[in-house]
Amino acid sequence: MAEVNDIDLKEILDFGVNLSRTVGSVILKAFKQPKKIQLKETCADLVTETDQLVEHMIIKAIKDTYPTHKFIGEESVAAGLKCNLTDEPTWIVDPIDGTTNFVHRYPYVAVCLGFCMNKTVKVGIVYNVPNDEMFTAIRGLGAFCNGKQLQVSDETDLAKSLLMAEFGSKRDPETIEKVLKNITSVLTNPVHAIHNMGSAALNICAVASAQAEAYYEYGIHCWDYCAASIILEEAGGVIIDTEGGPMDLMARRLVAACNTSIAQSLSRKLITIEYPRD
Amino acid sequence: MAEVNDIDLKEILDFGVNLSRTVGSVILKAFKQPKKIQLKETCADLVTETDQLVEHMIIKAIKDTYPTHKFIGEESVAAGLKCNLTDEPTWIVDPIDGTTNFVHRYPYVAVCLGFCMNKTVKVGIVYNVPNDEMFTAIRGLGAFCNGKQLQVSDETDLAKSLLMAEFGSKRDPETIEKVLKNITSVLTNPVHAIHNMGSAALNICAVASAQAEAYYEYGIHCWDYCAASIILEEAGGVIIDTEGGPMDLMARRLVAACNTSIAQSLSRKLITIEYPRD
Repeated sequence: MAEVNDIDLKEILDFGVNLSRTVGSVILKAFKQPKKIQLKETCADLVTETDQLVEHMIIKAIKDTYPTHKFIGEESVAAGLKCNLTDEPTWIVDPIDGTTNFVHRYPYVAVCLGFCMNKTVKVGIVYNVPNDEMFTAIRGLGAFCNGKQLQVSDETDLAKSLLMAEFGSKRDPETIEKVLKNITSVLTNPVHAIHNMGSAALNICAVASAQAEAYYEYGIHCWDYCAASIILEEAGGVIIDTEGGPMDLMARRLVAACNTSIAQSLSRKLITIEYPRD
Repeated sequence: MAEVNDIDLKEILDFGVNLSRTVGSVILKAFKQPKKIQLKETCADLVTETDQLVEHMIIKAIKDTYPTHKFIGEESVAAGLKCNLTDEPTWIVDPIDGTTNFVHRYPYVAVCLGFCMNKTVKVGIVYNVPNDEMFTAIRGLGAFCNGKQLQVSDETDLAKSLLMAEFGSKRDPETIEKVLKNITSVLTNPVHAIHNMGSAALNICAVASAQAEAYYEYGIHCWDYCAASIILEEAGGVIIDTEGGPMDLMARRLVAACNTSIAQSLSRKLITIEYPRD
C-alpha cells in the first residue's frame, strides 16, 4: 500500500479539474450541434458518440499520467467491461451525466470524475459544462464551486424542504408505479416542492449548494454519484442508503440530504425499487 | 381606442425591461438572505415580504408613468382586488414567479410583466433574476434572451421530446392523484424525460429556448403565463388550452409546445384538473 499512501490528492484534483475542462470544451462544441442518438437499455436511455469519445479521452489521459490506476467508466461498462471496485486507486468516470439533457440542449450536463482508494471516495469533480460550474472536493478539505466554499442548508424539517427527485429512464408500468408511489409519499409528507434537472450528480450538487434540502434515487450507477457524494459530504451533508444504512457505492440507490435528520425522515417515506448491483 | 393605437410597444418594452432590472436588484439582495414566509392557499403555497414589496414597486412605477393603464397583479388579487381583464391597456404582473425557489435559493426566480391590449398579449418580459436572463418579446417582432433571438426545437415526435411538468402546490390526495395520472400518461407515451424547475414562466421560456419541447400545467394563474406566452409564440412555438382550443388567459391551464403537432399530441394525453377561473 506504499503507493497509495504516497498519492497527493491535491495533484489528483488538479489533474481531474484540467481534464474536465479539456473534455468540457469537446462537450460544449457538440452540445450546440445536432446529435446521432443510440438507445441503451430503454427508449429513454440515450447515448451519443460524444459520450463514448469523451470517455476514451478521459481513460487515455488517466492511463498516460497514472498507468497503475484502475478505472470504472459508464461507457466501458456498457461495452462489456466489469464494474469491479478494489482497494487500488480507481477513477470512477461518467463522461456525460445528463445525456438526455445533452441531446436536448437542456443546460445541465456534467463531467463526473470520482477518485477512490481502499474503496473510499477521496476526490470528487463534477463539472457542469454549459453553466461552467466546477464543483470539487478532497476528503477533509471542504467542497467548492468555482472556488467558493459550499455549505448545505440548515433546515431540519422535511415538510419545509425542497427536494430533488427524478422519474428515471425506465418506462415499464411496474417501475413507474413504484416511482410515483414514492413521489406521492413525499409530496403528501408534505414538502415545499420537488424539482429535477435530469442529472444525478447535479441534483446532489444542488443539495451541497443549499439550493435543495434532499435528493433520492433508485437505479442510478456508481459513476452517477461517486464524485458528487464527496462534494455533498464535504459541504456538510450526508448520503445514505435508501434503507437508512451507510451509502453503498455499488447499490444503485441513495438518499442525499443536508443533514441526518432529513435523510432518515426521507428514507422512511420510500419503498424500495430493486435493481441489480453495479 | 385612439390612445391604444398610439401606444409605442417598443417604449413599453424598454420601460418593462428597466423596471424588471430595478426590482431584480431588490429580489437578488433578498434572495441571499433568510426570509419570513407566510402561507397562502396551501402549506406549499408560499409568499414573502419581498413578493409584496416588489409588486408595490411595479404598480407604483406603472401608475407614475402610465396613469391610465390597468393592472392585474398576483399579490393584489391575493389581497382582494378583482382579476378583471378588459380591452384597456393592462399590465399582468407576477413580482416573483417561483416564490418557493426564492425561499430556498433555488436559482429559478423570475419577474414577469405582460402587457395586453384588447385582451391580447402584446409585450412580454420574463427576467430570471439569479441567472440574469432577460427574455423579451413584442408581438410580430420575435423573441429574445439577452439580445439573442430565440427559436423553438424542430422535433415533431412527442416520444422523442423532453417535457417540463410541475407537481403544483396542492397536497390533497385527489389533486395529487390526477397530477400523477397525467405524469404517468405522458411518461408511458413515452417521452425522453420530464423535468421541472418550479417556475411556470421559466418552463415556458425553456420551450421558447429549444431546451425542451413542451410544458403543461393546471392551476396556474394568468400572471404566471401571460408574459411568457408571447415569448414562446414569437420564438415560433404555440400555446393552447389543455383541451386543444386556443389559449385562454383566464382558464388557469395550458399546453405550451414547440409546434402544433406536439401540443395537440400532448393535450390528448391529459385529464382535466378543474380550477375556478381567474
